[in-house]
Amino acid sequence: MSKPYAIRTALDEILDGLVEGDAFPPERELAARFGVARETVRQALHELLVEGRIERRGRGTVVSKPKLVQPLSLKSYTEGALKMGRKPGRLLVTWEDVEATPDLTAALDVTDGAAVMHLERVLLADGQRIGLESTFLPKHRFGAFTETFDPTTSLYAAVRATGVEFGSAVERVETVLASPREAGLLESTTAMPMLRLHRRSVDTDGRPIEVVRSLYRGDRVAFEALLDDRE
Amino acid sequence: MSKPYAIRTALDEILDGLVEGDAFPPERELAARFGVARETVRQALHELLVEGRIERRGRGTVVSKPKLVQPLSLKSYTEGALKMGRKPGRLLVTWEDVEATPDLTAALDVTDGAAVMHLERVLLADGQRIGLESTFLPKHRFGAFTETFDPTTSLYAAVRATGVEFGSAVERVETVLASPREAGLLESTTAMPMLRLHRRSVDTDGRPIEVVRSLYRGDRVAFEALLDDRE
Repeated sequence: MSKPYAIRTALDEILDGLVEGDAFPPERELAARFGVARETVRQALHELLVEGRIERRGRGTVVSKPKLVQPLSLKSYTEGALKMGRKPGRLLVTWEDVEATPDLTAALDVTDGAAVMHLERVLLADGQRIGLESTFLPKHRFGAFTETFDPTTSLYAAVRATGVEFGSAVERVETVLASPREAGLLESTTAMPMLRLHRRSVDTDGRPIEVVRSLYRGDRVAFEALLDDRE
Repeated sequence: MSKPYAIRTALDEILDGLVEGDAFPPERELAARFGVARETVRQALHELLVEGRIERRGRGTVVSKPKLVQPLSLKSYTEGALKMGRKPGRLLVTWEDVEATPDLTAALDVTDGAAVMHLERVLLADGQRIGLESTFLPKHRFGAFTETFDPTTSLYAAVRATGVEFGSAVERVETVLASPREAGLLESTTAMPMLRLHRRSVDTDGRPIEVVRSLYRGDRVAFEALLDDRE
């Protein structure tokens, strides 16, 4: 059995015996205990960090909370987080009107250069920064939000409250690295893999509601889909 | 506008004017043309590499094929690739019987230590290595495959040919880094973000068919789901 594989198995066994928030043994101690090079331990610890099993806290390392598993569905972030027993929250970063780019013009079915509302928020779960969500809404449909919407609450609830019903959405999932700005807002680094989601939602009449580009910390979030034979 | 953002926008414009397989200008030339540090250009090129917009070829860099977009559905890899106009293929890495671990015992509804067939294959699209798929099947249901199944063909087609119909599956998507072994099999590196899929499929009677753990190159594959209000 290769050394990297053996050390990873040993670390997984240590993790099995610990609970969330417990201190994880330091690199030096693990290298001595298993008789391997510190570089081998460092690589295995980096894997656990990327997978969100452990995290840095101050000068030490502790066992992480399990990942937030978000359903791929038309439900809102709020509903997904609550289902996992996590307290959802949002921090407003940007709220502005922008001119529709050619991409947005087509996706939101607005006229060239029409006003589009752009809302950028950090998503929180139990106070931890887990994602950065950038939503574009056609101003002519949802312009009243400027007066009525509290950006720390669920946007989907606000959309539904106007009488609009979500009909369907196409969602794409990719992995990317964060830009320095995004990494900063997510309290992460540009070397940590992130999940990028791109969603376009339409109402039950097929009229565009939103285009969303979200970036989720790969160490804190997973997505889950229920597939069946209806399609 | 920050330099990293400006250079990235400039590179995106260059990409818009090029087609698949075209040479992309080298770092040195780009740094001189835009009057920025080579390190700034290097970071932007690394982002494009991770996103699969460009790839190394020999000593140069060329524009990549668009990502293979795989539907999150009960369709097979073959069907997804063909729909995108790509030629699917598979290379057999491992085909062995293993004893069910506690996880597999529960997921496949077999007895403790029962024989499970393990099939590990590299997935190809137009000859490019795009993923590594590890499938576990209960031997008592699909044991005949040892004699009848050609591992370079679609496993889902073989399952269906036995009269078993896929009913539903739960699929989880995460981002991880590859182990050195996985990176080698995918002709990638341990620093490139990958998409990890975990799927458990059951037949129309709810009986387990398979557990699959797949690793897809994040620079070559994206997943797409069609969400609707049926759930």
